[in-house]
Amino acid sequence: MARSPGLSGFPEWLPDGRIVELEILDTAREVFELHGFASLETRSVEPLDVLVRKGEIDKEVYAVRRLHGDDDADLALHFDLTVPFARYVAENAGQLAFPFRRYQIQRVWRGERPQEGRFREFTQADIDIVDAGELSSHHEAEMALVMSELFARLPMPPAIIRVNNRKVLEGFYRGLGIEDPAAVLRSIDKLDKVGADGVRRLLQDDAGLAPEVAEQCLRLAAIRSPDASFVDEVRALGVEDPLLDEGLAELARVVEAVDEARPGAVLADLHIARGLDYYTGTVYETFLEGFESFGSVCSGGRYDSLATDGRTTYPGVGISLGVTRLVSLLLGRDLVRASRSVPSAVLIAVVDEASRPASEAVARDLRARGVPCEVAPRADKFGKQIRHADRRGIPFVWFPDPAGHTVKDIRSGDQVPADAATWTPPDRDLRPQVTRGDDT
Amino acid sequence: MARSPGLSGFPEWLPDGRIVELEILDTAREVFELHGFASLETRSVEPLDVLVRKGEIDKEVYAVRRLHGDDDADLALHFDLTVPFARYVAENAGQLAFPFRRYQIQRVWRGERPQEGRFREFTQADIDIVDAGELSSHHEAEMALVMSELFARLPMPPAIIRVNNRKVLEGFYRGLGIEDPAAVLRSIDKLDKVGADGVRRLLQDDAGLAPEVAEQCLRLAAIRSPDASFVDEVRALGVEDPLLDEGLAELARVVEAVDEARPGAVLADLHIARGLDYYTGTVYETFLEGFESFGSVCSGGRYDSLATDGRTTYPGVGISLGVTRLVSLLLGRDLVRASRSVPSAVLIAVVDEASRPASEAVARDLRARGVPCEVAPRADKFGKQIRHADRRGIPFVWFPDPAGHTVKDIRSGDQVPADAATWTPPDRDLRPQVTRGDDT
Repeated sequence: MARSPGLSGFPEWLPDGRIVELEILDTAREVFELHGFASLETRSVEPLDVLVRKGEIDKEVYAVRRLHGDDDADLALHFDLTVPFARYVAENAGQLAFPFRRYQIQRVWRGERPQEGRFREFTQADIDIVDAGELSSHHEAEMALVMSELFARLPMPPAIIRVNNRKVLEGFYRGLGIEDPAAVLRSIDKLDKVGADGVRRLLQDDAGLAPEVAEQCLRLAAIRSPDASFVDEVRALGVEDPLLDEGLAELARVVEAVDEARPGAVLADLHIARGLDYYTGTVYETFLEGFESFGSVCSGGRYDSLATDGRTTYPGVGISLGVTRLVSLLLGRDLVRASRSVPSAVLIAVVDEASRPASEAVARDLRARGVPCEVAPRADKFGKQIRHADRRGIPFVWFPDPAGHTVKDIRSGDQVPADAATWTPPDRDLRPQVTRGDDT
Repeated sequence: MARSPGLSGFPEWLPDGRIVELEILDTAREVFELHGFASLETRSVEPLDVLVRKGEIDKEVYAVRRLHGDDDADLALHFDLTVPFARYVAENAGQLAFPFRRYQIQRVWRGERPQEGRFREFTQADIDIVDAGELSSHHEAEMALVMSELFARLPMPPAIIRVNNRKVLEGFYRGLGIEDPAAVLRSIDKLDKVGADGVRRLLQDDAGLAPEVAEQCLRLAAIRSPDASFVDEVRALGVEDPLLDEGLAELARVVEAVDEARPGAVLADLHIARGLDYYTGTVYETFLEGFESFGSVCSGGRYDSLATDGRTTYPGVGISLGVTRLVSLLLGRDLVRASRSVPSAVLIAVVDEASRPASEAVARDLRARGVPCEVAPRADKFGKQIRHADRRGIPFVWFPDPAGHTVKDIRSGDQVPADAATWTPPDRDLRPQVTRGDDT
């Protein structure tokens, strides 16, 4: 029970659930900073017209207005961190060194119908690299490598990043003589939801494709390979187009570069399209082994024309970990557990209210050496103070005594003499630990 | 220039400003956890009627609604973290162990007129302790002690926490026969803004006090002392009321307990009132020495009836650091600086694109030992790669060479042989350092 009830689509964790989320956020930050990404936050609101222009999800945006104000621009809560970041880069280009690498961990809002793994307010952890004018393509492999390193450090099921390239899809559709590739993209994007038969109908009825053309689109979407062998499979379909060639070469480079550094981390998957319309090349989605139906937990792509200040264009590539979705999966399926729900490793007992300062002095000594602790709220009988520690999951209780302090491990019952200037709990007890549910 | 331009009231920092903010957030978290506060976040929205009922600032609330939705409850962005926390406690009481200690670091929104130090979107770092039924009064001193410990660790001017007690004010007003103490409180709360003459007029014209009664209120508001001597000064004004007695005893206990553990950390200041109407006892405001006009950077108080689930009431006490206000002061007045704006301590040079994997291997070795680094984006001439590091503030450049790697401190120009499996930068260069502006 790490989830609180409340407003549907606006999840809140109980303290032990928050510890799991913090573990993910801390690890993400550590990995991102090791790779030279600088932390950044943007405001939560953007002008409404900017958001509606950049996404295809205008109906899902939350507008905000002052309750008694009518003098303001139309504002809305951002629905992702990429559009605000692109705006930030264009606004502050003169102050940034390019290629600019940033990570951003913030909440976003979408007015979607809440369901398992889909929320109206949720936290994302994004990395992006943007350059001025030109962006080197090796950064596209880098995105997958950084996230794959993060996944390997997290207590979660194995994750595989599926990669595709918009140019492959658009070039292929163009080579087939399709006039509105965007409509086909939107249909293909629904493959996981409605299946091949559903998409076949969409392609024929909505996008107006001939049956054989629709079949070719479905054949392309069925191709996946852990290496560059997808190139030959696509060629075997007999469609030709220069943009297709470009896309295949780019996708092969990404898959090969990632596979060399982290074998098995990516899979070329030619049905990945990504709904948002600003991607122009490489796109990513990530599924957890055994939980594919839960949807992608880490998605992104390359966007060549999202950020511009009128004179210069700032092409970028980014990938975004869906922190709330991941946490909700890990907690909802009991895949992880936190060793306790409070930071305190020690409860300092209080003999009587008059001697509370003596207990606080012990706490000060322990904290000075980095041991999280708290002083008992009331000078109850020791048995009751121990039960208080037990209820909060605090492993040790300290008994101050001028004749000689002692500390008790309330799990084993062991009680030993201790000096607040030197005693330290075992490493595994110093902070709450988050482990795979099946590790314990 | 650590501040980005943009929407007035919605501040965004440049990367070096964000490093200053992160230093404050990290230190806050460390201190809070050492004191046993558990991390928690709540959703950003609350039902509009809850917010309007709990604050006196309904006109300052931001309402949110789905752009094309009309099926939703009226929601608004929270204006503080106390009201949502009280709701969370009442909602989840069965899952929490009391007294419950939590910290919460999140953004809040207020539709106020933006000005120096006052924003429409800003980050707060709160600690609160709530209990079921009764809350021990020693937690009121604890709030001030934890924040004072935090201030001592931050690169900022000295801060003094000013403490008062609502019961002192209300009891005193009652003892004077005033019928609407709330109106007087609101006027006294404006003392810093409009001065004694302004408040005198408000008390007589708006609150309808006789001149001598107004004068007594102003005399009370002028009292301040670093110890319990304020009690005698209040007594000397000759007003008597049981609630006044209770308030004076509580306030004296807080001031004495804090002063004993951290001398000089608090000041009893009998004009502190706090605008929000949910405080019922101890209240806090904090001013930085030499920057009093900037307003309080850390405020809070005790609230006895904010959280209730109908059967049980959960009295609490909390204090909130205004992170954005503090950062804007520190950056705006050049009081701090960050040693660099990126996490990377090392740029790994790239000899040519064909050998990029060799540079990436060096980066992997360094990261495995916790050294943040990045690989040069392009295989430019070394001079250009060094200038790229310089522009990003990265202190070291690594030159991969099968015949023997070297690393150069680009500040001193020293270049020495190095092994990626063992070399580490000096501690002061490993992470960006934030220091007082006058330390360097």
